[in-house]
Parts: sequence; structure tokens; C-alpha cells
Amino acid sequence: MPVVHVVVLAGGVGGARFLSGLRAAVGANDRITAIVNTGDDLTLHGLRICPDLDTVMYTLGGGIDSERGWGRIGETWTVMAELAAYDAEPDWFSLGDRDLATHLIRTRMLDAGFSLSAVTAALCTRWQPGIILLPMSNQRVETHVVVDTGDGVRAIHFQEWWVRHRAELPAREFVQVGVSDAQPAAGVLEALTGADVLLLAPSNPVVSIDTILGVPGLRDAVHNCPAPVVGLSPIVGGAPVRGMADKCLPAVGVPTSAEGVARHYGARHDGGVLDGWLVHSDDTADVPGVRVNAVPLLMTDPAATAAMATAALTLAEECRRSA
Amino acid sequence: MPVVHVVVLAGGVGGARFLSGLRAAVGANDRITAIVNTGDDLTLHGLRICPDLDTVMYTLGGGIDSERGWGRIGETWTVMAELAAYDAEPDWFSLGDRDLATHLIRTRMLDAGFSLSAVTAALCTRWQPGIILLPMSNQRVETHVVVDTGDGVRAIHFQEWWVRHRAELPAREFVQVGVSDAQPAAGVLEALTGADVLLLAPSNPVVSIDTILGVPGLRDAVHNCPAPVVGLSPIVGGAPVRGMADKCLPAVGVPTSAEGVARHYGARHDGGVLDGWLVHSDDTADVPGVRVNAVPLLMTDPAATAAMATAALTLAEECRRSA
Repeated sequence: MPVVHVVVLAGGVGGARFLSGLRAAVGANDRITAIVNTGDDLTLHGLRICPDLDTVMYTLGGGIDSERGWGRIGETWTVMAELAAYDAEPDWFSLGDRDLATHLIRTRMLDAGFSLSAVTAALCTRWQPGIILLPMSNQRVETHVVVDTGDGVRAIHFQEWWVRHRAELPAREFVQVGVSDAQPAAGVLEALTGADVLLLAPSNPVVSIDTILGVPGLRDAVHNCPAPVVGLSPIVGGAPVRGMADKCLPAVGVPTSAEGVARHYGARHDGGVLDGWLVHSDDTADVPGVRVNAVPLLMTDPAATAAMATAALTLAEECRRSA
Repeated sequence: MPVVHVVVLAGGVGGARFLSGLRAAVGANDRITAIVNTGDDLTLHGLRICPDLDTVMYTLGGGIDSERGWGRIGETWTVMAELAAYDAEPDWFSLGDRDLATHLIRTRMLDAGFSLSAVTAALCTRWQPGIILLPMSNQRVETHVVVDTGDGVRAIHFQEWWVRHRAELPAREFVQVGVSDAQPAAGVLEALTGADVLLLAPSNPVVSIDTILGVPGLRDAVHNCPAPVVGLSPIVGGAPVRGMADKCLPAVGVPTSAEGVARHYGARHDGGVLDGWLVHSDDTADVPGVRVNAVPLLMTDPAATAAMATAALTLAEECRRSA
């Protein structure tokens, strides 16, 4: 069997789960590169936190709390309780003790001048995720959400909207602060150019996948990449499988449906990024120029997730043959 | 009763215990100011750590592990274990989870441009130690220890010598790195000028009290202060009550005895700092110009510690009357 290089654009919890299924589905010598959203990253209490990178790293490295989907298994919250005892703000972001060591090391390395790519590689020497884990960009690109707080319209950090307000303040707009000065991180364009298959994980289309595609040069690289591009729908039966994509899609005028998201991504021959689109068994999507298959997409257990990854690879192969 | 202002030069564990006894011994309206050694301070994993200030703050604020004498009661070590799992160096300094929150806040405030005085005051709004807690200096003054490692002579940070090597490498010399550029912190000289009684806590004479006195201007301010100056011997029966002063005194040519330490501090009329010297019941000290009393100095419980503080105040009063 020839070695296949599968490249995946991914966000946090859903992306991480999908990647673990994909790792189980590919051949032993195949290679997976994940290009991960960093738009959710934030600095709290002087610590640089990269929620999506860490969720992928912990999930593939066996350190995740798989019940919760994020954070470390066996986590404790002592430092956070102490910060609260000092009335240190903000207090709404869960900062676990185990997790905090990762942030301490990351912050020190960044302060010392290392890139986020280099930091991620260094952290992965411990976690051995079995894939190549790349941040989408080494520059700071922060997703802010324009909301009406009742006291007026303002932009807040995505995490404040997502975690503190549980996405209950209607989002008017998503803004990628800093994106115009950003570039794809080391290895990202090379991975897209060298991919045999390119997958869009069933992550949040607006604040994960679109954020990655928003890094200058990245959408073009996906559009022009030599590999078939297959996306997996994060919407099943008109609702997100996990997360709160339904709170994000209206702000960009996209219906919360498998077809709505596929049309939003667009067919490659229409200037979009998709050749294939995988929807859940009972869903449909009709997008000219996009080949659609339907299989179970619920990631209920590792076997189901691996089967779904296999279905994505199969659809990619069908796209390649029909091209 | 008139309000009395008692000023104390203090190090960590011994100083903190003595201060809690003193707080119990003085009148309700009396005021205590502690000028605390910062020569042991260090930066680890990007966190600024002030062991002596924190030991005093936690002890007087009810947060200390009184069994151990340092660190927080109910402490856990999760972050430290995780840092070790990343092979992050150094791994020999005990960094508790509860304690770490203090360091995070301190580090952020220092990075934001606040002085160590201001940071200490901010942390004390939580701990309410009931005394005024001042760092000796806001500049970085680090005690380094010249040792022969077997591979040659080199200077290592005091904490590396004390904690990692348990003071087992013979100390040739103690060096206060940065001291020539340091000044007494805000409030220190004012406290010395306005003191009614000045006490030297039974702390390590070399790496706590001498370090404080080494800050430019501080020894002169003690020598010239209007109040009687009384020291408490940290040496009982030829050995330190706690800590490892016996590993430090030989490097400065001072015998490990109550009298040896008193002669090292010197009588005020001979250019030194002492008017009175309190030794343990069975000890003696003969230092011309220094009034000596003997009482139990073991700080075995709060009542014993308060009695010892009362004896120090009494000796100060005797010094004042005989002046």
C-alpha cells in the first residue's frame, strides 16, 4: 500500500474526536496532519491558552477527560479556586491544575521567542499524538463576537461569549482580530500542497473551519490543492452534534442544516472548497458539483468514529476517480 | 497606653513564627511593621516566587502549613507533577498548587509595572496579616552561594543550595547579586526612623538579617534609629533552632553560638546594630555594650512564642531606660 498523507482542518472537541477515529482508520504507515484553529486562544492570568490545540493533543495523547470532551482526565481546580479567593478576574474560564502546567510551559517558550508551532511540537514530545499537529498560524488571530449586551453593542472575546455567556447573547458578527497580519504557520501550506486527501472535520463551520480558512493564503491553498477535499457535516438533523454551531450560523446567514453548511463552504468548481460532503444517514444535501454520501456521523464510540473517517476517505477516493 | 510601633527585621519560617507571637504580645492598638528578606526570591517556570514574604503572609493570615512551617495548609502538587511529566527544569523546588496562584498574581502585577511593595500590599488584602508587611527592597537582590561542586567553584542561587543540595555543599561565600543597585523599599526607612522598638527576629543571621542590612542605607538606618534595637538569638545551645544557620555562619567566620552571632551583629556604640540580645535560658553571651537577657527561645507553641516576644519588648524597654 502506498503511504497516504491525510490533511485535516479541525477545531476542538469534534475535531479531536474525528482525528482519533481517523488515526484508527488509516494504514500504519499513512500520515495525518491536523491544521488546527487558534482563533479561540486567549491569555488569562498571564498564561497563553490554546483550547483547540490542547484538546486535540490531549485527546490523541490519552490525556483528555473524554466524558467532558475537553481538559485533562483526573483534573483538579485548586489554582483556580485560589485565584478566585484573591478576587482575580476573570473567573469564568475553567483553568485546571493539570492543564495549567501546559500553559506555563507554552507561555515561557513563547516569551522566550519560540513560535507557537515550535511550542506545539515541544509539547507533543510528551503527548505523542501520532499525527503532525500544526497551529493554523503563529500570529495572534482572535475571534471576537459582536453582541448586544443590553448596555450597547460591543465585541467580546469568543471565549467570553462561549464560556461566560454560554452563547446566549445573540451573535451579530464574528471578527478575526489580527487576521490581516497573519500567515499560515510553518508547514501548513506545504501540507496542503502535499496532501493526498484533505478533510474538513465536523467542527464549527464559523468559528473553527472558517477561522482557519480566513488566514490569508489558506483558503486559496485549499481551493487549489491537488487532493480531493471532503467535508463532514457538523449538523445532524438540523442541530449541531455538539457545541453551539446553531448560535453561530445565523450570524453569517447560513441555515443550520447539512446542506446549508455545504453551500456555505461551496463547491470547488464554483470557487469554494468542497469536492465531497458527508452527511448523516437521514440527512440530504443538494449542492451542484459536490458529491454527497450519507453515513452515521454521531461519533458515539471509537468504532463508529473510525467508520465515519473511513467513509470520508472512501468519498475522497470517489471524488478523485470521478474528477 | 500609648501606641507603640514595633519594627522587625525578619526572614521566613522563624521570622514568621516570631511575628505571630509578637502580634499576640503587643497591645491591640500597637503597630507592627515587618521588613522581610527578599534575597531568597527566585523566578521558576516564569513565576516570581518570594518565599520569605509568603511564609510571613501565610503564617499571619492563617494559611500556612504550620507542621511544615512553609507553604499552604492542605497543599497539593498537581502542577508540579505535570511540569515534571514535561521534563521541565528545575524540578527540585516545591511548587504547590495553592501557592502557585499567589505567584501567578504577583508575576502579572510585576509584569504590569507594579512594585513588589504594591504587590505585597495587594496580596495582603486577602490575607489580612494584621501587620504591615514590607519587602526589604523593590529591586532584585539575590543571594548566591559560592560552592565547590567537585567540578569546580561556582555560584548558585541560594534556593538551589538550600533546597536542592540541602546546604550540604560547603558554602565558601554568600554574594548579594544586584545589591549595589538596590534601595530600601517604600516605607522601610520611614519605619526605621519612626520605630519605638526595633527587633531582629531569630532568623538566619547570614542569609536573612545580613541580607536585609546589606541593602544600601539600611544598616546605617538601623544603626542610627532612635529606638532601642534588640535581637533574638537563632542559636540555642550551639545549634540553630530551625533552618541551617550552622551551614552559613562558618562562611562568614562566625561561631555557631548565641555570643558569636551577637558579636557579629555588633554593639551599636561600636558601630554595630545591637543594644540588647536575648538568648535562650541556658545560653550566655558577653558582648561589651550589649545588654543580655536569657529566657526560653524555642517557639514551641503560640504562648511560648508570645512570652518570648514580650521578653524582647521588656529588654528593649530596659535598654531605653539605661540609655
